[in-house]
Amino acid sequence: MSFIKDQIETIKKNDPAIHSTLEVFLYPSFKAQIYHKISNFFYCRKHFFIARLISERAKRKTGIEIHPGAKIGKNLFIDHGSGVIIGETTTIGDNVIMFHGVTLGGTGKEKGKRHPTIEDNVYIGCGAKILGNINIGKNSKIGANAVVLKDVMPNTTIIGIPGRMVSRHKSK
Amino acid sequence: MSFIKDQIETIKKNDPAIHSTLEVFLYPSFKAQIYHKISNFFYCRKHFFIARLISERAKRKTGIEIHPGAKIGKNLFIDHGSGVIIGETTTIGDNVIMFHGVTLGGTGKEKGKRHPTIEDNVYIGCGAKILGNINIGKNSKIGANAVVLKDVMPNTTIIGIPGRMVSRHKSK
Amino acid sequence: MSFIKDQIETIKKNDPAIHSTLEVFLYPSFKAQIYHKISNFFYCRKHFFIARLISERAKRKTGIEIHPGAKIGKNLFIDHGSGVIIGETTTIGDNVIMFHGVTLGGTGKEKGKRHPTIEDNVYIGCGAKILGNINIGKNSKIGANAVVLKDVMPNTTIIGIPGRMVSRHKSK
Repeated sequence: MSFIKDQIETIKKNDPAIHSTLEVFLYPSFKAQIYHKISNFFYCRKHFFIARLISERAKRKTGIEIHPGAKIGKNLFIDHGSGVIIGETTTIGDNVIMFHGVTLGGTGKEKGKRHPTIEDNVYIGCGAKILGNINIGKNSKIGANAVVLKDVMPNTTIIGIPGRMVSRHKSK
Repeated sequence: MSFIKDQIETIKKNDPAIHSTLEVFLYPSFKAQIYHKISNFFYCRKHFFIARLISERAKRKTGIEIHPGAKIGKNLFIDHGSGVIIGETTTIGDNVIMFHGVTLGGTGKEKGKRHPTIEDNVYIGCGAKILGNINIGKNSKIGANAVVLKDVMPNTTIIGIPGRMVSRHKSK
Repeated sequence: MSFIKDQIETIKKNDPAIHSTLEVFLYPSFKAQIYHKISNFFYCRKHFFIARLISERAKRKTGIEIHPGAKIGKNLFIDHGSGVIIGETTTIGDNVIMFHGVTLGGTGKEKGKRHPTIEDNVYIGCGAKILGNINIGKNSKIGANAVVLKDVMPNTTIIGIPGRMVSRHKSK
């Protein structure tokens, strides 16, 4: 239940377009995370097929594809959500905000842990692609449509293809 | 009814892949605008929840998410449509053409009017992100996957991340 | 039936996240190609409306929009698939791999053959847009979110907006 309470607070804090608490239940971000909790339950018990069946259904219903194996922290908010892909070995910290079209994917060259690790308070703009077993440091911001293939230091802002640092701010 | 007639003309003019008038009714662009007229009706009467319910349904059915509050001009054509997001305070003029993956969104830093104003005859390529309360001047063209964060003058072509002007043409 | 066998092999070879053969039947890539075989059957017999009806349904179910007229070679693999658009006059060779968000589209300036030709063994990263009647040579790689508007020579790697060559490798 604390998950639902946290999600209501997270969505209300982050989306100025929301008009009432009830609207939270319409958010793809909320639905996709409920589905992910279920698919991850089956994945951890090695029921891979049913886990995948649920995550594919979640994708059709919400536009957000989270692989059942992904590890997700508290208060994740995925705004809009269409086209979001989160890979099997991704790890996401707390209070992360991401937008539609974001990919946390692989490069096809790695085995085992082959998807990114996103630390706390990271903000990922719409359409950004973060690929490979890389680390995105705390409080970083990734600009819209950026392509990030290397580690990102904490408190930095990255834009472009390939992603380059445009500013470094003090840690909060 | 004039809306349906206008849409048939608009789609037939802009999509060389169409083979018959009947196909117009299969177009996500057409369906999404019908849904938007309904959701906007409820939004204007402050029935925000039902408005949002309709726009979320439209998104699942068409791939196009138009916030019920967005203002849309005549003869809008959204080709393909998957992943299109149009924010609450967006204003779109007449005869605008946009492709799948386009975002008319916010930067998260503004309050009130926080989404773009798109003037008449603008052409927005697939995957382009136009973010913030900025103005895209008449007859402008925004290239595929461009990220536009500043005002764009009329009759200009913008590409890249961040968007830069590559040509200026005479007004039609 | 050889199509199903080939697809099972293709998906198992290319996706390290797969855990069992049965999962193949959950893949949007697999479903979309089955739908395309049906829509293409009707398209070739000039039943354009029903062909389009099927391809629009396929898009809603899989996230992948393949125009019924597109020509597709053997062993195509479209990973994830959300937001993929493949235009009417596109030709795709054998063993092509592409990711979600890829567009093989038109520029709006050409008539007749107005979509790309993708040769064998090409790899197209997520979010890449390949636009116009251009030729992408064998064994090429197109980076994530790249925008390609000109012919690409065989064995080259292209990234950025507009796409530029970053490396040339020997043919396999």
